[in-house]
Amino acid sequence: MKVGGRHYRSIEHRNGRVEVLDQTRLPHELRQLELKTLDDAVRAISSLVVRGAPLIGVTAAYGLALGLREDASDAGLARAIAALTATRPTARNLRWALEQVAAEVRSLSAGERAAAALHAADALAEADVATNAAIGRHGAQVLRDLWQARGRPRRLEIATHCNAGWLGCVDWGTALAAIYAAHDSGLPLHVWVNETRPVNQGARLTAWELAAHGVPHTLQVDAAGGHRLRSGQVHVCIVGTDRVTARGDVCNKIGTYLLALAAHDNQVPFYVALPMSTYDGTIENSGEIEIEDRSATEVTHVWGRDDAGLPVRVQVAPDGTRAANPAFDVTPARLVTGLITEAGVYAPAELGHAARRAAS
Amino acid sequence: MKVGGRHYRSIEHRNGRVEVLDQTRLPHELRQLELKTLDDAVRAISSLVVRGAPLIGVTAAYGLALGLREDASDAGLARAIAALTATRPTARNLRWALEQVAAEVRSLSAGERAAAALHAADALAEADVATNAAIGRHGAQVLRDLWQARGRPRRLEIATHCNAGWLGCVDWGTALAAIYAAHDSGLPLHVWVNETRPVNQGARLTAWELAAHGVPHTLQVDAAGGHRLRSGQVHVCIVGTDRVTARGDVCNKIGTYLLALAAHDNQVPFYVALPMSTYDGTIENSGEIEIEDRSATEVTHVWGRDDAGLPVRVQVAPDGTRAANPAFDVTPARLVTGLITEAGVYAPAELGHAARRAAS
Repeated sequence: MKVGGRHYRSIEHRNGRVEVLDQTRLPHELRQLELKTLDDAVRAISSLVVRGAPLIGVTAAYGLALGLREDASDAGLARAIAALTATRPTARNLRWALEQVAAEVRSLSAGERAAAALHAADALAEADVATNAAIGRHGAQVLRDLWQARGRPRRLEIATHCNAGWLGCVDWGTALAAIYAAHDSGLPLHVWVNETRPVNQGARLTAWELAAHGVPHTLQVDAAGGHRLRSGQVHVCIVGTDRVTARGDVCNKIGTYLLALAAHDNQVPFYVALPMSTYDGTIENSGEIEIEDRSATEVTHVWGRDDAGLPVRVQVAPDGTRAANPAFDVTPARLVTGLITEAGVYAPAELGHAARRAAS
Repeated sequence: MKVGGRHYRSIEHRNGRVEVLDQTRLPHELRQLELKTLDDAVRAISSLVVRGAPLIGVTAAYGLALGLREDASDAGLARAIAALTATRPTARNLRWALEQVAAEVRSLSAGERAAAALHAADALAEADVATNAAIGRHGAQVLRDLWQARGRPRRLEIATHCNAGWLGCVDWGTALAAIYAAHDSGLPLHVWVNETRPVNQGARLTAWELAAHGVPHTLQVDAAGGHRLRSGQVHVCIVGTDRVTARGDVCNKIGTYLLALAAHDNQVPFYVALPMSTYDGTIENSGEIEIEDRSATEVTHVWGRDDAGLPVRVQVAPDGTRAANPAFDVTPARLVTGLITEAGVYAPAELGHAARRAAS
């Protein structure tokens, strides 16, 4: 996507040099960071320099290529996969991307592996862009149909949570791809952006993305999502996801379940946008999904920019406060209106069938 | 309540000197602030130096007494009431307290009014303490009964939102009064504290209060409230309220509705603790309640303490981000299990009858 006239992707590879946008610096600083080693990639994923299920997958793919540059033996391959897998337990795409790259290189000689892995990572990145563009087309149609069905309001009011934009993918995004495509096609719309504590991906990343693309939006605290729906100010909710189970339960950023409950209570459709690679048919009961517990300091402290323009962390809670920080929750399929994928829009219970058809 | 061995109230009057705890400084600094004039009281309420429906009411009562010291004419009385009423539109107790004091002084000569108003404010403060102690007794019984009904778990897991503690009242609190009374009576319990963005009354005030009283607790982001309920880690929710309507709809801090939805979706009881003075029988349809819209900077920025220990404000959102900041939402009566008052525990639809009986 373009920022200030230049086209960026969240991760870029040119001539063996892999660079990511440092998302911990956004929105106050736009800075690319080179990933030179496997460790760099592991740290970038763990520390949220890169985040978002699809981007985590692509970054892990490049990380595996970097790891194979250092040690292309079978042991090195296994070690790199283990290190990358351990970074974030919840996102399905991470494991999926590593499996894709590993399948390409496992049968090769050690000398061929690094280049082949880099090539496979490039292919995954390009496929992600094409997938997201397709999600955007299908999603824009959903939004346009809703706008028609609601009697063509002055603008379609959309609520979203976290960041399911190009920063969470390679380009375009998932939920935001639908919004960008609809906006670009002339559909009048406005987005209610949940700030998405504790890491504030909504306030820091989604608000920044939407502003860069010229999409009208208003920021609110996560707790306001219910009030907004109850007062009739939202026509549709759309979010991304980190994993969808066999029965269509949706694991996504903490707080998604609450937004879905409020949408359901107010008869507002709730859509989830995802690449098929996020579907995990191996999980029937969403209770089996490991919910990542992150550091308590993400809750007790907040990062921002002080009045002098410097990045600074402030402590909100009292000294010694114990905090819990589950990063994801599960929205049961009964609260989900539809799943928007690159292959089309499905009811939650139908996704498994569509995914098996797409894979065969 | 005691803090570090000294007994505090959130507002104290001795020999004509009115002091409040400056809640914008908590939890990092415990500082009392003298209110010398009507303007001081207006500013203290508007800027959240004092907050919480019962405390807003008592502070307004003292503010009216301070205003009458400056101008005890009928015009001065009307002006003071207007200035105090305009500070916070949502809380019922503010108007109620002003009506109580005005009724005491209106028929007096100008020379008698200031002293009589101060006396009436003292009486309201004392009544608030007694009311909250009674709420605590009734609430503790509710918690103990739930603990028994759940088969006496190792500890009763309680979730709360915002601050309905002694800082929001004069002493004890409403929802937290129940928790303090239960804890003091030996009931083993643990409290999940929602941080309560944007002003973080949960993280800053409830966590501080609970720590000072030795009540086990864990802080979480507001968005985690649903996950916590869905994973079976909460036995009961209890919150305060700023206004309850004739049909038992509950207006409270933004985010309460989402917590109530999640409690309902997981068959967990949801209680609201309040003094009868919070009941507003004049409002049938909760859509008539004016929801206070506060400053966008409360959303785009966060106050805290930097690593050097200094209070500092950080900007989280991009420059120029538009933000909406509704301070309250409405939880429909159908999601509320019971209302805990000084007169006992009522179903939402029964409160009006009980309030009329109490008033007659």
